[in-house]
Amino acid sequence: MTTALPKGFRLATINAGFRQKERPDIALAVSDVPSVTAAMFTQAAFVAAPVIVAREMVRGGKPMRAVLINTGQANACTGEEGLANCRETLRLAAEACGLSPAEILPASTGVIGAQMKMDLWAKALPEIAGKLGSATVEDFASAIRTTDLFPKFSGAVITTAKGDITLAGVAKGAGMICPDMATMICVILCDAEVDQAVWQAMFKECVGRTFNRVTVDGDTSTNDTVYGLANGASGVRPDAADLPVLRGALEKILGELAYMLVQDGEGATKVMRITVTGAKNEADAEKIARTVGHSQLVKTAMYGKDANWGRIVAAVGRSGVDFLARDVRVTLCGVELFRDEQPTSIDFDSLLAEPLQGRDIPIGIFMGTGPGEYTLLASDLTHKYIDINANYRS
Amino acid sequence: MTTALPKGFRLATINAGFRQKERPDIALAVSDVPSVTAAMFTQAAFVAAPVIVAREMVRGGKPMRAVLINTGQANACTGEEGLANCRETLRLAAEACGLSPAEILPASTGVIGAQMKMDLWAKALPEIAGKLGSATVEDFASAIRTTDLFPKFSGAVITTAKGDITLAGVAKGAGMICPDMATMICVILCDAEVDQAVWQAMFKECVGRTFNRVTVDGDTSTNDTVYGLANGASGVRPDAADLPVLRGALEKILGELAYMLVQDGEGATKVMRITVTGAKNEADAEKIARTVGHSQLVKTAMYGKDANWGRIVAAVGRSGVDFLARDVRVTLCGVELFRDEQPTSIDFDSLLAEPLQGRDIPIGIFMGTGPGEYTLLASDLTHKYIDINANYRS
Repeated sequence: MTTALPKGFRLATINAGFRQKERPDIALAVSDVPSVTAAMFTQAAFVAAPVIVAREMVRGGKPMRAVLINTGQANACTGEEGLANCRETLRLAAEACGLSPAEILPASTGVIGAQMKMDLWAKALPEIAGKLGSATVEDFASAIRTTDLFPKFSGAVITTAKGDITLAGVAKGAGMICPDMATMICVILCDAEVDQAVWQAMFKECVGRTFNRVTVDGDTSTNDTVYGLANGASGVRPDAADLPVLRGALEKILGELAYMLVQDGEGATKVMRITVTGAKNEADAEKIARTVGHSQLVKTAMYGKDANWGRIVAAVGRSGVDFLARDVRVTLCGVELFRDEQPTSIDFDSLLAEPLQGRDIPIGIFMGTGPGEYTLLASDLTHKYIDINANYRS
Repeated sequence: MTTALPKGFRLATINAGFRQKERPDIALAVSDVPSVTAAMFTQAAFVAAPVIVAREMVRGGKPMRAVLINTGQANACTGEEGLANCRETLRLAAEACGLSPAEILPASTGVIGAQMKMDLWAKALPEIAGKLGSATVEDFASAIRTTDLFPKFSGAVITTAKGDITLAGVAKGAGMICPDMATMICVILCDAEVDQAVWQAMFKECVGRTFNRVTVDGDTSTNDTVYGLANGASGVRPDAADLPVLRGALEKILGELAYMLVQDGEGATKVMRITVTGAKNEADAEKIARTVGHSQLVKTAMYGKDANWGRIVAAVGRSGVDFLARDVRVTLCGVELFRDEQPTSIDFDSLLAEPLQGRDIPIGIFMGTGPGEYTLLASDLTHKYIDINANYRS
């Protein structure tokens, strides 16, 4: 699979040496012209220096020209020095690329608490600027990985009466927060001509329906960032009929990237798709889905390929939501296991032996006749997760 | 260590054969006279048959004569048949012991969803009635275990001007909810003469400060039950000055049992004592403590003996509580690791190498100058936890 690069963008990657790996650790994307920019950041109270800097930069919906991402160093919990270092990387990149520092969005991922290695930055940035145009979307996705096992990228081409619009997206994840690593970063590049308010609203809605509906370990990070740059280089301005199509393509890409985050959750072997329906409202449905998706007992049962309905039911029961126990029904891989407050008489252990071998595990939870629905993707909890997270620093 | 049995109680245990183990699986405690009874039950929405039956029995603060506990079968998610079976066990026990079924409190723990093996009950109950008086507090504690690695019991003797009061307590735990196992049961026997309202209020307060402040995996169960029987057999009625001492002894016993629950959490190697101080209020402090105590990343770091302050700070930051980041300080094993939004300059990796080998891991989180405080005991997350929970049924 290859993903086309939208018009008017150039990419480059380089190995600056932030880590002991023979792999690029800086990725740079530059647009030929100022791009309408959407941005969303972590809600955590402790945020990394690049989040503080970027939040300030995008205020008022300012257009941007570039995104500069590094892995290996999260630049989180680094105080004033971290902020100054972040700004200095933007100054160096601007100088090398002939841009203004105020047009380059930063993002960092890696170890928390260590200061940036500024000598490596000073050496790498002039070099990466000279390589612009040499990297593919896949190269870019590969360069922003930390413990990610595979690069995460996706794209779409939309045909309109006025011509084609191309979108490309990359993301990194692994744990929602990795061991000491500050994690989720996603960049979407697009060559459509759109208004900032429309673009930002589209991101807010689509991120809410995708990235905000996945969980690996319930932990979120100091650095979570989503950027969307639309540079208009296709010359196509989507009209009222095209906008829902563009929105659909954006949701598809973000949804695919979100799925890959869970699939590549640390040590994960399963992707549970937990669908709650019939709850009183969406908030209740979300609460139930998250209690099930965060339950260590449900996660380990799925890892063990065990049709352990009791753990799902117990999680629903302690979710703190009001409901009538007799209304609740639970399905696993499409088979109804629980209704009328007791297990169904189906011999589901043998019926589910095969489906539970697969990667995708649908869990359906029916709460009654209310309008509340929510779907959450969640990974399982495995020996490998403990390996990765108990042994990371020691 | 031995724990004295309060006056006027007789204990017995028997192996009814609910499990494939050569170990008693029914425990019976009978008081010579009606006992003032306190009872607290799980808050989960799906509750086991014995919880439904017992909740009804204790309504209005009725005195009780006995407690009948079985392991191996939780009698949860068993519908009307489960309720009838539970009532039948009480009828059989009453007949065997010469009591009324309305005076015998039931509690069950074990596999969810299977119906009680009534033939085994019918055989065992006349037999166990004949053995009353033969078991010690430790025997009783041992008989109510499921996956618990050791029996949990504790006691106290209080000296008053009018004579001694004796308390004995037993508990079972392992996971807050085990694999398919419905879990926490605690029984306190006491020979003081107390009013029901005073006794119940004492339990509510002390359980809130002990059992409700521990977490193994964040899951709670369909069967959680605490019973307290005070039969007055010592002839000592504590006066206003004695009551705080009795309350203190009760809290000590419940606290010790709660600690043992965490210590024996499935696969646990550590007991984290997470103390949050200076929060705006107790609710905020509790939210922060629980976010840290439930964090898979904090739990695995402690298992890995890793002074990984970044994970503690990240958990505080996503707890959903409002605070000033610059006010926050974090200590681990008494060493300050984080303040002023960055790590302290202490070489804590070498300083903490030794303390992190131990079982008890104090974590201090100082949020500012508010009055809110909360302390939570939490276990770590280990390879063994995954072994136990991924492989239980398969």
